[in-house]
Amino acid sequence: MKVTVIVGGVGGARFLLGVKAALGLPPVGAPDTKTEHQITAVVNTGDDIWLHGLRICPDLDTCMYTLGGGSDTERGWGQRDETWTVSHELKAYGADADWFALGDKDIATHLIRSRMLRAGYPLSAVTEALCDRWRPGVTLLPMSDDRVETHVVVDLPSSGERRAIHFQEWWVRYRAKLPAHAFVPVGADEAKAGPGVLEAIAGADVILLAPSNPVVSIGTVLAVPGVKAALRSASAPVVGVSPIIGGRPLRGMADACLAAIGVDTTAEAVGRHYGARKDDAAEGLLDGWLIAEGERADVPGVEVRDVPLIMSGPDATAAMVRAAFDLAGVRP
Amino acid sequence: MKVTVIVGGVGGARFLLGVKAALGLPPVGAPDTKTEHQITAVVNTGDDIWLHGLRICPDLDTCMYTLGGGSDTERGWGQRDETWTVSHELKAYGADADWFALGDKDIATHLIRSRMLRAGYPLSAVTEALCDRWRPGVTLLPMSDDRVETHVVVDLPSSGERRAIHFQEWWVRYRAKLPAHAFVPVGADEAKAGPGVLEAIAGADVILLAPSNPVVSIGTVLAVPGVKAALRSASAPVVGVSPIIGGRPLRGMADACLAAIGVDTTAEAVGRHYGARKDDAAEGLLDGWLIAEGERADVPGVEVRDVPLIMSGPDATAAMVRAAFDLAGVRP
Repeated sequence: MKVTVIVGGVGGARFLLGVKAALGLPPVGAPDTKTEHQITAVVNTGDDIWLHGLRICPDLDTCMYTLGGGSDTERGWGQRDETWTVSHELKAYGADADWFALGDKDIATHLIRSRMLRAGYPLSAVTEALCDRWRPGVTLLPMSDDRVETHVVVDLPSSGERRAIHFQEWWVRYRAKLPAHAFVPVGADEAKAGPGVLEAIAGADVILLAPSNPVVSIGTVLAVPGVKAALRSASAPVVGVSPIIGGRPLRGMADACLAAIGVDTTAEAVGRHYGARKDDAAEGLLDGWLIAEGERADVPGVEVRDVPLIMSGPDATAAMVRAAFDLAGVRP
Repeated sequence: MKVTVIVGGVGGARFLLGVKAALGLPPVGAPDTKTEHQITAVVNTGDDIWLHGLRICPDLDTCMYTLGGGSDTERGWGQRDETWTVSHELKAYGADADWFALGDKDIATHLIRSRMLRAGYPLSAVTEALCDRWRPGVTLLPMSDDRVETHVVVDLPSSGERRAIHFQEWWVRYRAKLPAHAFVPVGADEAKAGPGVLEAIAGADVILLAPSNPVVSIGTVLAVPGVKAALRSASAPVVGVSPIIGGRPLRGMADACLAAIGVDTTAEAVGRHYGARKDDAAEGLLDGWLIAEGERADVPGVEVRDVPLIMSGPDATAAMVRAAFDLAGVRP
């Protein structure tokens, strides 16, 4: 079965672990033998940033490390047994962006990526090369090879001046506490979907929207020209998984993002934001919408089902994914 | 007193510690108060190399770390309490040049340097910025802001093919064991002396050639157009310190380099190789030549003196430097 998943970072990576488990694949690494199942993840790259001359792709790397068995599951991001010597030294030099901690192991990834990018390789080829080592068992496709960077319009705390800052600065430095007036995926208008992205959507047996941030993760992927149209015209059913449980984000700070685009932090509001594929006028995307057990959501034209939505481990997540398959009417 | 020293890496850095001590300056770091003495080091950059997208300047960094109190005095190069996580990870990715170990602390230096170079700052400005942190107490001037890289003509052990490889590959990977047919300072012909280099030579009260490698350290600095002429026309006396003691290099593998240019590994042969300033025909550089205690060297036109030449510590090195001052007829 061909499963295509639209994902962001940590939540997306955990969801992908569940997709693998639901298909009977080993949780980390690539299967030893050829499998009839193919999982393709279309990964948000709007969080990507140049820092210290290094190209950092947090969502791609989180997926790669997590699915390759190298992530720090306690901290939730970055690599296991990570050290911080380089960041410490950069600080001693008074380097900027000291709010963004770069692990030493992580820096090796960025060194290889940055060098390949400077040599002219597209991000998709770089990602494939890096995955040669990590063998995530999922084809990780950057949403685009073009540079797209989410900027956040805020009033700077120092001067009160209204300015657009990089998403990472808003997210990591200000911990999403600065009220966001808008999110702008800079470069998205001119970006092309990455190699294989539209094909993975068109050729899938089932398409899932991971319970990632609907604005700055899934929303940014959807901002790449052609992706929405591909989802709307795909022959496979599209099922989304709500990142909101009990009026709060599953993880991360999605509420701060939803507020900026005028969407309530409820499963119903996010479901309506994605909209129904049936609804030709509204450019909706969903056939099915999975929400947390015991909740209710009325999303016109979309089949809504409530199931346990906690990603406490691959087994629990696999159960969620099986429920999504079931809602989509597919069976591995 | 204005002292200008032509230096390479480890030996040059240790020699500079002695120059500071001989002038009554603290061994590491910058003096707390203004001093009447100014030390300027013209540093070889022919060993510099791009690796993993990072610009590495081994001699500049060795001088900076050593004079800033951050070097690993036991290992002889790199930083104290260094770790190797990034290099280890690069190897796990199968990255090339795994024979060149880059410490994590060291990488922070290279990240800042590479970013500044890519932003258009010349190496001299980058070096000044890095020295803001290390406060070496010596003005470190790259011999040139232009790219000059020493290549070594060898017969490759795998194929027997004659090829020019980067000096670092010869020195670190092959430990100078591959017979060198020639050393080529690629780019030197078109290079300009770095800002302040010719002025530091012209305006000095005394000029010293450190006991660094006469071929690939001092020799490369001398290959930069204008440097030799500046030394020959300087008003200050020029005193060289022999890197050869008892027919063997003080440290490093200078013998392998001298053999390639047809110079014997003796203090006399190296002194003659540098030559006398008095000798107009031969483009010589020296007024004085300091050799190891108990040795003899006949260098026509050059005053030779034998003194203890072991750089066992700043005090012993300071005694060497005082002997050089004495030979030059200057007094701090």
